[in-house]
Amino acid sequence: MIRVGVIGYGYWGPNLVRNFMAAPGSAVTRVCDLRKERLSSLGKLYPALKTCSDSTELINDPQIDAVVIATPVSSHFELAMGALKAGKHVLVEKPLATTSDQARKLVEEAAARNLTVLVDHTFVYTDAVRKIRELIASGELGQIYYYDAVRVNLGLFQHDVNVIWDLAIHDLSIMDYVLPARPVAISATGISHVPGQPENVAYITLFFDSAQIAHVHVNWLTPVKVRHTLIGGSEKMILYDDLEPSEKLKVYDKGISVAPGPEDVYRMLVSYRSGDMWAPRLENTEALQTEALHFIDCVENNKQPETDGLAGLRMVNMIEAAETSLRDRGRLINIQW
Amino acid sequence: MIRVGVIGYGYWGPNLVRNFMAAPGSAVTRVCDLRKERLSSLGKLYPALKTCSDSTELINDPQIDAVVIATPVSSHFELAMGALKAGKHVLVEKPLATTSDQARKLVEEAAARNLTVLVDHTFVYTDAVRKIRELIASGELGQIYYYDAVRVNLGLFQHDVNVIWDLAIHDLSIMDYVLPARPVAISATGISHVPGQPENVAYITLFFDSAQIAHVHVNWLTPVKVRHTLIGGSEKMILYDDLEPSEKLKVYDKGISVAPGPEDVYRMLVSYRSGDMWAPRLENTEALQTEALHFIDCVENNKQPETDGLAGLRMVNMIEAAETSLRDRGRLINIQW
Amino acid sequence: MIRVGVIGYGYWGPNLVRNFMAAPGSAVTRVCDLRKERLSSLGKLYPALKTCSDSTELINDPQIDAVVIATPVSSHFELAMGALKAGKHVLVEKPLATTSDQARKLVEEAAARNLTVLVDHTFVYTDAVRKIRELIASGELGQIYYYDAVRVNLGLFQHDVNVIWDLAIHDLSIMDYVLPARPVAISATGISHVPGQPENVAYITLFFDSAQIAHVHVNWLTPVKVRHTLIGGSEKMILYDDLEPSEKLKVYDKGISVAPGPEDVYRMLVSYRSGDMWAPRLENTEALQTEALHFIDCVENNKQPETDGLAGLRMVNMIEAAETSLRDRGRLINIQW
Amino acid sequence: MIRVGVIGYGYWGPNLVRNFMAAPGSAVTRVCDLRKERLSSLGKLYPALKTCSDSTELINDPQIDAVVIATPVSSHFELAMGALKAGKHVLVEKPLATTSDQARKLVEEAAARNLTVLVDHTFVYTDAVRKIRELIASGELGQIYYYDAVRVNLGLFQHDVNVIWDLAIHDLSIMDYVLPARPVAISATGISHVPGQPENVAYITLFFDSAQIAHVHVNWLTPVKVRHTLIGGSEKMILYDDLEPSEKLKVYDKGISVAPGPEDVYRMLVSYRSGDMWAPRLENTEALQTEALHFIDCVENNKQPETDGLAGLRMVNMIEAAETSLRDRGRLINIQW
Repeated sequence: MIRVGVIGYGYWGPNLVRNFMAAPGSAVTRVCDLRKERLSSLGKLYPALKTCSDSTELINDPQIDAVVIATPVSSHFELAMGALKAGKHVLVEKPLATTSDQARKLVEEAAARNLTVLVDHTFVYTDAVRKIRELIASGELGQIYYYDAVRVNLGLFQHDVNVIWDLAIHDLSIMDYVLPARPVAISATGISHVPGQPENVAYITLFFDSAQIAHVHVNWLTPVKVRHTLIGGSEKMILYDDLEPSEKLKVYDKGISVAPGPEDVYRMLVSYRSGDMWAPRLENTEALQTEALHFIDCVENNKQPETDGLAGLRMVNMIEAAETSLRDRGRLINIQW
Repeated sequence: MIRVGVIGYGYWGPNLVRNFMAAPGSAVTRVCDLRKERLSSLGKLYPALKTCSDSTELINDPQIDAVVIATPVSSHFELAMGALKAGKHVLVEKPLATTSDQARKLVEEAAARNLTVLVDHTFVYTDAVRKIRELIASGELGQIYYYDAVRVNLGLFQHDVNVIWDLAIHDLSIMDYVLPARPVAISATGISHVPGQPENVAYITLFFDSAQIAHVHVNWLTPVKVRHTLIGGSEKMILYDDLEPSEKLKVYDKGISVAPGPEDVYRMLVSYRSGDMWAPRLENTEALQTEALHFIDCVENNKQPETDGLAGLRMVNMIEAAETSLRDRGRLINIQW
Repeated sequence: MIRVGVIGYGYWGPNLVRNFMAAPGSAVTRVCDLRKERLSSLGKLYPALKTCSDSTELINDPQIDAVVIATPVSSHFELAMGALKAGKHVLVEKPLATTSDQARKLVEEAAARNLTVLVDHTFVYTDAVRKIRELIASGELGQIYYYDAVRVNLGLFQHDVNVIWDLAIHDLSIMDYVLPARPVAISATGISHVPGQPENVAYITLFFDSAQIAHVHVNWLTPVKVRHTLIGGSEKMILYDDLEPSEKLKVYDKGISVAPGPEDVYRMLVSYRSGDMWAPRLENTEALQTEALHFIDCVENNKQPETDGLAGLRMVNMIEAAETSLRDRGRLINIQW
Repeated sequence: MIRVGVIGYGYWGPNLVRNFMAAPGSAVTRVCDLRKERLSSLGKLYPALKTCSDSTELINDPQIDAVVIATPVSSHFELAMGALKAGKHVLVEKPLATTSDQARKLVEEAAARNLTVLVDHTFVYTDAVRKIRELIASGELGQIYYYDAVRVNLGLFQHDVNVIWDLAIHDLSIMDYVLPARPVAISATGISHVPGQPENVAYITLFFDSAQIAHVHVNWLTPVKVRHTLIGGSEKMILYDDLEPSEKLKVYDKGISVAPGPEDVYRMLVSYRSGDMWAPRLENTEALQTEALHFIDCVENNKQPETDGLAGLRMVNMIEAAETSLRDRGRLINIQW
């Protein structure tokens, strides 16, 4: 039984508490938040829970094995480092930290202490994304040609992070999980429409060593909500529409056939293929439930999480590169792994 | 009565012939195509039409006032220049030419001879696009924040031009027509998935002098067809979905309100606005009909077409810049006007 | 402050408890359910609540002003009657009772004791349905021609009531609320696909005294979920799609114009009108919140609820007529009001 | 080579002429229409064609083997009978005739003379409908539970036939083609919203000998166009949406499982099944092309058309029953086969 302490009881914290309460191998024993009124609403729901407003107290609580961090981004590093130094396993909301330096330190600290760090890249734990990974890994799509994601809506303007940290990280972490190859360079563009505020529109192109390309479009200021990902392969193609209630994934047996032309190898004959479409049935497991069970399994059996500290570091790395490129209007930035 | 000669009777030529036949102020008197079998199918439909397989013959035909060019891209310059030199008005399929040099020469030749040149940027003549221009010009959208276009499908692979020349030109010409401001710099990325073939995926960001951004995504290799344009303004926003049979345009009274924060001018308070949506009724006039009538009007009354040679030159300019940027993986290219 | 007791803590009960807890003018003081485990889950959430498993105890609790009944349909009459006889106001889940006789007795008992009865026809309290009523009442739609509702999905098979009692009642109650006229006769058809089980498909036509028609299609056994209502008027038409996340209502300025023909008054000239479409902004208030506040207001100020006992009786009346017709394969049944 | 004469060159005639011109085994040799201006437009397209304005002349033309009738409904019987009596094969637009008596006489006359009659139930010749028949015939859907069709739009008001003759006939003929069983009784309701005009809304329920039900909803007066057919089976279910450009058919592996309950055979346990969805690839053959080739094949090889005179008679039979029922507000009418 993993005893879990949760720091931060705002928007996402209640979901984390509920799932670690419900999971067979864990129980939430303490919750920390600076805002008294948040904690009192919690008291009604879980009268037995201990609460506190000082995160150090929770981190050092000997009754706690793992610390879940659901606080504003700027505090992730300090809290996670504190928890690791106190010998606790850590689950931290995305992003892992605000700089790759910080992220690297967390990875090293966890490794040195043999502690588990799981970064809450939630979408990785959805049934749809896990199915996509399975389809790609099985070779069913053939060679991957492109990955194109659109995640736009009339969203909450954030004051401290831009739309890449807020939205694109979801697509970057899904891509990181489902694609075998990793991007090697990045070109990003974007803009802020409110003076003094972070960018609210961004376009990110990712280059790979092979003939593969990826692109992410995020925007906090569109009148309609779109969650649309296209993945093109040489054999099949996927449309992943997260807003579809029942057919989130569609697998198309469509593509092109390429044959050398009669005259010349560079005069290829390209023709279409068009076959059936297939929408695999997906369970509707709550992603956080899958994630909570996975975290417990990793802690108990000393396994590496699917979204471990290194995955968290890769995301921060990519976002740093994207921001550098964006501020220089699309200048190509190589990604250091 | 404008007497029209049409060169090229392939995919688009029949539509041009039909519309200039039907228009009150014009008649097609001669059609030229290298392929005899194309001309014979024409003979059944319009027995009175003269045909020929030599474009010079048509261009020099004294019975012809205007030459319509619907041939492969690489021949546009030579044919248009020939027609201008023979004193004919010219309507040419997009793009106007394959280089900005050529395009500029055509503009100059037409100006020197006081002849009309209209470039067939067809979408400019659709009811939907004309309505968008009207909405933006009236100020209803407020300040324009972004223009985002997606034009993807499982499309015909072309051997001589890439997906930018084939598809993005539609969005660039729509944008040129509806937006008051012109882009000043460009960053493009893309890839070819068939060795030796032109790029089949491209992403283009356009920068403006103001806090405005535009982006075009084109792809010949997607399993679903998408024609989706979002235009965000400070007051209203437009979704233009060309595949919608009856509600192509939706105007949303949605956006953000910005007020200075209590402490500090850089701590803006950004909040949402959400109001009604409105889909204006559109006529379903065939775009080519509107275009043909406009061409006749310009020729007869010596007016400047809405998509004149200069508009054609701007498109070639932008595409050249986009290609340069794309080959250098997103490097910023300033656009010379 | 209205003190509320809730009987039945199954699927819908928790929503009722939550809303009467949150409403400013009420508090839930006691909850009753036969199933101990349901009550214990409740204890975690609201430790101060009294619970019991005997409904009589709750009904006779002098600390309770109003009884909310969320139990299986067959118990509605007895519990509601008991509550009224104990001098309590009553809110009862739909349907009010299983026969019109029972429903009539409840109406009479409440009237005699001057107690409030509200039947939980939930959709009446949604923003979309209230907007539809407003549009029709304002005359904007002109004369109503038809009301057509489809409510189908792969739904829970019920053993004691058929698909009319389960699903069609929603549409009948929406129609009762938004249409000025009441149906005078009914013809229904349907079928059961599982021997010994209630009908799982039904089609109901409702006739009016005027040239108006209504139809409801309900089905527990369709592969896709549809919630689609069309309301046609002589001036405008409404499409109400409850599954649309943000544009549930679309108002079309479409219809026909009728003019006497040249020869003969019976040779009418019918032509189309097609204008703009408009989607009014809707709040997203939870229907149960609006309903709870309305119930409190009715109890405190002795008002008649919008879905009072008589509305509940009308629904039972119509469903009885529909069932009679269905069992006789569409035979016309006059509705007694 | 079948020599075809076409009577009626209005809305549908040109499509018939084009297809019988293009089909390898046939040629249109003569076209008849009362309206001179229609025939002159034809002359431009097919200069070699003979034309006339007297149908008797065409019918008696010895150079003609088969007569195609695309005239107003009221003339179908007389023209078809005349053609048969002149020894010609006949293809007639739907419906075959205006009464079952007439239809029966045509069937008998054709049989007596061993001539082919094909009724143009166009949808039967679409790839989507042929695939549905194949899926049902293969047993893949299991036992058929229901067939539900919606065909509504803002349609042309007709003066001489109601919406059943105009629209429902499409669904009745599709159903006739794909379902192994035939309906035995009918209950229909509907209304006219323009005094003196035929019904513009209708609802038709069809009963079968087995536990199967069918329903057709047609309406000329809806603001949106819907072409939606649901076919439910014990094993799989089909959604056929004719307006979908590329996925017209979706086959759902969804349904219910029924097992006897523990206590009692009438207390069935009904539970859900939910599996993959599959959209078979369809060719986009023009239905009229398939139909023309089929007609030629039947004439040449003395085969019975899939939509022969008997199919045409069945449609007229069903529509007569539906009209009788509709005028009596849903009264059950047995269908005489």
